[in-house]
Amino acid sequence: MIDLCLLGSGGMLPLPYRALTSLMIRYNGHTFLIDCGEGTQTSIRSLGWSFHPIDVICITHFHADHISGLPGLLLTIGNAERTEPLTVVGPKGLEKIVNSLRIIAPGLPYEINFIEIEDETKQLDLFGIKMNAFKLNHSVTCYGYSFELERAGKFDVEKAKQLELPVQYWKMLQRGDNVVYGNKTYTSDMVMGEARKGIKLTYCTDTRPTGLIAECAQNSDLFICEGMYGEAEKIGKAKENKHMMMCEAANLAKKANVKELWLTHFSPSMVKPKIYLDEVRNIFPETYMGKDRLVKELKFDE
Amino acid sequence: MIDLCLLGSGGMLPLPYRALTSLMIRYNGHTFLIDCGEGTQTSIRSLGWSFHPIDVICITHFHADHISGLPGLLLTIGNAERTEPLTVVGPKGLEKIVNSLRIIAPGLPYEINFIEIEDETKQLDLFGIKMNAFKLNHSVTCYGYSFELERAGKFDVEKAKQLELPVQYWKMLQRGDNVVYGNKTYTSDMVMGEARKGIKLTYCTDTRPTGLIAECAQNSDLFICEGMYGEAEKIGKAKENKHMMMCEAANLAKKANVKELWLTHFSPSMVKPKIYLDEVRNIFPETYMGKDRLVKELKFDE
Repeated sequence: MIDLCLLGSGGMLPLPYRALTSLMIRYNGHTFLIDCGEGTQTSIRSLGWSFHPIDVICITHFHADHISGLPGLLLTIGNAERTEPLTVVGPKGLEKIVNSLRIIAPGLPYEINFIEIEDETKQLDLFGIKMNAFKLNHSVTCYGYSFELERAGKFDVEKAKQLELPVQYWKMLQRGDNVVYGNKTYTSDMVMGEARKGIKLTYCTDTRPTGLIAECAQNSDLFICEGMYGEAEKIGKAKENKHMMMCEAANLAKKANVKELWLTHFSPSMVKPKIYLDEVRNIFPETYMGKDRLVKELKFDE
Repeated sequence: MIDLCLLGSGGMLPLPYRALTSLMIRYNGHTFLIDCGEGTQTSIRSLGWSFHPIDVICITHFHADHISGLPGLLLTIGNAERTEPLTVVGPKGLEKIVNSLRIIAPGLPYEINFIEIEDETKQLDLFGIKMNAFKLNHSVTCYGYSFELERAGKFDVEKAKQLELPVQYWKMLQRGDNVVYGNKTYTSDMVMGEARKGIKLTYCTDTRPTGLIAECAQNSDLFICEGMYGEAEKIGKAKENKHMMMCEAANLAKKANVKELWLTHFSPSMVKPKIYLDEVRNIFPETYMGKDRLVKELKFDE
């Protein structure tokens, strides 16, 4: 199971009633954070989730509303007595940017490992989560991230019994290992059914809509996507500043065949995103307006 | 008249219910800000005061809780369409620190002028306010700031009449200029009474108590001072990290003969600063606990 929280739903500026867009994901004792604008640590504190287990911070791009809270957060993670290394993932130039910001957070009780992405897409395996970074179309280099938790097939007891392999070896096969017993090799696929549907989550901001997004978000259980503007007349501004309209996000959600769409990164000028909900649901019915500290659990299908 | 707002009252970390300590001062269309931690711009927005007229930002020292919000604020001031230059005052090294943080705020529509302070005290005259920076005793170089608005003496109409100087020249004398009329020079002191009491405000965090603070805060109408800890047993921690106890701040207020003391920069561990109020008022009766967006007007005496 993955549980997640949209820590904020705003773009550009932190507002008293709307924190900047950021996502916190917990899986199996590990915490991932995507983006860290000014105030993200305050939203985490409101939520009550721990700072210590933050193992990975993914940065979409280097605009201030997505990274300005990083030095403060790094210090707060240090105050939470973390000593294990922390991984920061982001576009090329990441280490330089983070070190420049760290002029006010020089001494930390843990190391930072940087993973800089240059390619169109980049797959990473982090703490049991398969992460895919994919390039977006913004005014500066920017990446979206998807997170997949794979699920093995079902263990077939009847098939296992037929192998005449002692029960104590079954667990190894179930884990995916091979077993040599007697003079015979037993492989995992002898007892395991086909891999079952896992969990997939995709996060995507700031960008114009692209085919690559639809491709990389394909079949996500949850697609969290920028919907900066709702009013049709803002399309010019969206194109100029390389942001996305709510209806464009809904069209992407439809194309990507996702289960559920959360819109976020609302313009400071948008006071009530909900007034556009009906319109967007005409395109993609399972759309929800993001709000600060909206939480959800993603579970394997029964 | 000066009006001012304590934007936050916390130290070390921004909390959901307590912003980091920062002070906003407005005088005659100009705005001064002292310190800018993570979330300061959000507190300004809650308050509703404008970003555009921020002419001077004073930084006490380079710990993150006093400066981490600066790049975001600079961008927000730019979004408020400021084009006039902005002055940033702080300890030596200021320009390097601010430029390092500006890696995420590179393009601004206004210039920044830096004033770096090295001396024990430094007097500056900014937009009609006499500012005095004075060195504190913290773990890194740190300055307190006092702000003085001087007040000329009363214009004496009877004395002016006796000069036999045409009325249109009186205003020049009142402004402090000399007037040459006929073959005689008239000086300001011929018509003006003794300078009257002005307005003085002193802001002081983070530091151990020192004689220089008492000296520089002398006769302030308002003394805003760090009171990081209330519990007597925290004195060791205060000394170690060079912070101030509430009762130490109250003793300084007494020594400096100030009118009113506001305590601020409370430790995140201190949930209710008010429980120490009675104790502190035993030392200095006119003590108030700072809280986010506490406002006050400082006026000339009637």
